[in-house]
Amino acid sequence: ADEAAMAAARARQDRLTKPPGSLGVLEELSVRLAGVAGACPPPLPEPVAVAVFAADHGVHAQGVTAWPQEVTAQMVANMRAGGAVVNAFARQVGAAVRTVDIGVASELPAGPDLIAAKVRPGTADLTREPAMSRGEAERALLAGAEIAGRLADEGYRLLATGDMGIANTTASAALIAAFTGADAEAVTGRGTGVDDAMLAHKVDVVRRALARHRPEAADPVGALAAVGGLEHAGIAGFLLGAAAARVPVVLDGVIAGAAALVAAALAPRVADVLIAGHRSAEPGHDAALRQLGLRPLIDLDLRLGEGTGALLAVPLVQAAARTLREVATFDDAAVSER
Amino acid sequence: ADEAAMAAARARQDRLTKPPGSLGVLEELSVRLAGVAGACPPPLPEPVAVAVFAADHGVHAQGVTAWPQEVTAQMVANMRAGGAVVNAFARQVGAAVRTVDIGVASELPAGPDLIAAKVRPGTADLTREPAMSRGEAERALLAGAEIAGRLADEGYRLLATGDMGIANTTASAALIAAFTGADAEAVTGRGTGVDDAMLAHKVDVVRRALARHRPEAADPVGALAAVGGLEHAGIAGFLLGAAAARVPVVLDGVIAGAAALVAAALAPRVADVLIAGHRSAEPGHDAALRQLGLRPLIDLDLRLGEGTGALLAVPLVQAAARTLREVATFDDAAVSER
Repeated sequence: ADEAAMAAARARQDRLTKPPGSLGVLEELSVRLAGVAGACPPPLPEPVAVAVFAADHGVHAQGVTAWPQEVTAQMVANMRAGGAVVNAFARQVGAAVRTVDIGVASELPAGPDLIAAKVRPGTADLTREPAMSRGEAERALLAGAEIAGRLADEGYRLLATGDMGIANTTASAALIAAFTGADAEAVTGRGTGVDDAMLAHKVDVVRRALARHRPEAADPVGALAAVGGLEHAGIAGFLLGAAAARVPVVLDGVIAGAAALVAAALAPRVADVLIAGHRSAEPGHDAALRQLGLRPLIDLDLRLGEGTGALLAVPLVQAAARTLREVATFDDAAVSER
Repeated sequence: ADEAAMAAARARQDRLTKPPGSLGVLEELSVRLAGVAGACPPPLPEPVAVAVFAADHGVHAQGVTAWPQEVTAQMVANMRAGGAVVNAFARQVGAAVRTVDIGVASELPAGPDLIAAKVRPGTADLTREPAMSRGEAERALLAGAEIAGRLADEGYRLLATGDMGIANTTASAALIAAFTGADAEAVTGRGTGVDDAMLAHKVDVVRRALARHRPEAADPVGALAAVGGLEHAGIAGFLLGAAAARVPVVLDGVIAGAAALVAAALAPRVADVLIAGHRSAEPGHDAALRQLGLRPLIDLDLRLGEGTGALLAVPLVQAAARTLREVATFDDAAVSER
C-alpha cells in the first residue's frame, strides 16, 4: 500500500466538515482505499463484480450436511438464471455476477454466463486421502488469479468473493484450524443448519482430517491440497490476482476467510487489498478475521455464502471512498472549528 | 402492521432457495416491510428521502460542547451546497436530501432547497427554564408530521431521519433518561468529542435539567418541551407522519433514538414502521434502542449524525425487500431440499 497516499487520506479526513473520527470504521477504510489506489482521494470503487466459485466436496460422503450434493449444480443453474440471493443483492448494489465452475462434480451446460475452469469434478474425501493433489491446488489457484486479472482488465474496480459448494464449511473449518492453530471444535459450525448430533460428527470429521494430514501454515499449498476445497483454492488465487492488479476485494464469509488465510500465507501483502464484508454466524470466521486483522463491516447473522455478505458491504466501501472525494473541508465550506 | 402479510412473508422466506434463516436479521426485516406495506412481497422501498432537521439549543451556553453554535447554520449551508457527509452518502444510495429549519438560531437564506419551518430561533437553556413551551413542542411535532406526509405524497417509499444541531446530544441524553429511567451518567456521551472534564460537566447539566423539570414518559409532550430540542420534536412528528402514511423510516443515531422514544410514547404503534439504521457510539443510543426493541443494521462506531448512519442502512433495507420479490423458490428453481 502507498504510505504517502494513506497519510494524505488521514490528513484529509481530519479537514472534512465533521468531527474528527466521527465516521468511525469508514475513515480507516477510506485510508486503506487510498493506499491500494496509490492516490488521495482514491477513485470511486466501481464498477463491481462478484465471482462465485462453485465446487463439490468428497467429504460430503461422510454425512456432514443435510443437503444433497446435487444442490451445488442446481444452485449454479439458479444463479445463472438470476434467481439466487446473490443475484438479487447484486442488482441492489449494481454488481456483475460471474459464476465459475472450479470443480462441480457434474458436467454443467456451457454458456457465456459460466466461466468454465473445472480443475476436477469435486475433491476427494479428506478423511481418506488428500482433497486434491498439489498440482490441482496450484491449477485452481492460477485459475482464480487469472479471473481476477481479467476482471481488472475489463475495468472492474471493486471485486467481491462468492462461493457455492455443499459441505464447504467442513473444509473451511479444517483450513482455519490449520492456519490459526485453533481446535477443530472452536472453528466448526452448523453451516447451512445441522443438528447437534451432526455437528458433533462434523467436528470429529474435521479432527480426523487434521490428524491424518497434519496441514501446516508453513506449507500453504500443501495444506490447501490436503484439506481445502477447489473453491477455496480458486478464491485464494482470486485474492492474489486482485492484489497483483491493486484492486480491493470484499470478502464474503467463512469460505472466503479460509481462502484468505491461504492467500495471506502465500503472500502477506495480499492483506492490503482485503476488506471483510461481514461477520458470518459460522464460528471459524471470527478466528480467520482475527488472524487477518480485519474488522467486518456488516454483522447481521448471515450464513448463506454465495457472496451475499460481501455484496451488502459494497455501498459502505463506496461511501467511504466518497467521503474523501466529495465532502467539503472546513476551509472550503467556511465552517468554524473547535 | 398487517399480520397476514407478515405470515405470508415468513412462509415465503422458508421457500426461497437458501437455507431457512440463513439471511439472519434481514429475514425478519423483510417480514416487517411486508407488514408495513400490507403486502407480500412488499414493494421495493424506493425512492428514498432523508429529512435533516436543524435546530439550536439554549443549553449551548452551559459549555457542553467544544463547537461554536454558529456551526449549526454553517453546516446547513454546507448541506444545501451538497458538501456535507449526508450529501455524499445520499448520492451513494440514491436518496433525496431535504433540509428543514425547525429552529436554527440565526436567519437562514430562503430558497427552494430549504423547508422553512422554524418554530423558534433555538430552544431556551434547559438548566434554567423549559427548553420550549408545550405549544411550541406541538407546533414542531406537527411540522415534522406534515413533512413526512408531504414526502409520502410525493411518492417517497422509504424515509430516513437526519439532524443537525450543536449541543443536541445533551438534550438527547435528557430525553433518553426521562423515557427509559436510566441515570444521566449512563446515557450521556462525548457527542462530537468532548474531553473528560467537559463530559463530567455535561452529565451534571443533564442531571440538573432532570432534577429541575422532572420530565416523565407519561407526559411525552411535556417532557419533550422541558428537556428536548426542536429537532427532536420535528423528528418525533416525522415518525408519526410516516406511520400514518404507512411508510417505513430508517432512524439515524442517538437524536433519532431520543425522538423515537417520544413518538412511541405518544403512539406505540409507530414502532411498526421504525428501522434502526445504525448503532451510534453515543451510550444513550443503546438504551433507546433497547426500549424500542430495535436491532441496528450497521455498527461502525459512527457518531456524526446528519442522517449518515440511516442512509448507510438503506441498501440493506432494500436488499431485504428484494429477497421476497426476486429470489426463486425451491419449486421454481427445481433445487432439492434437505
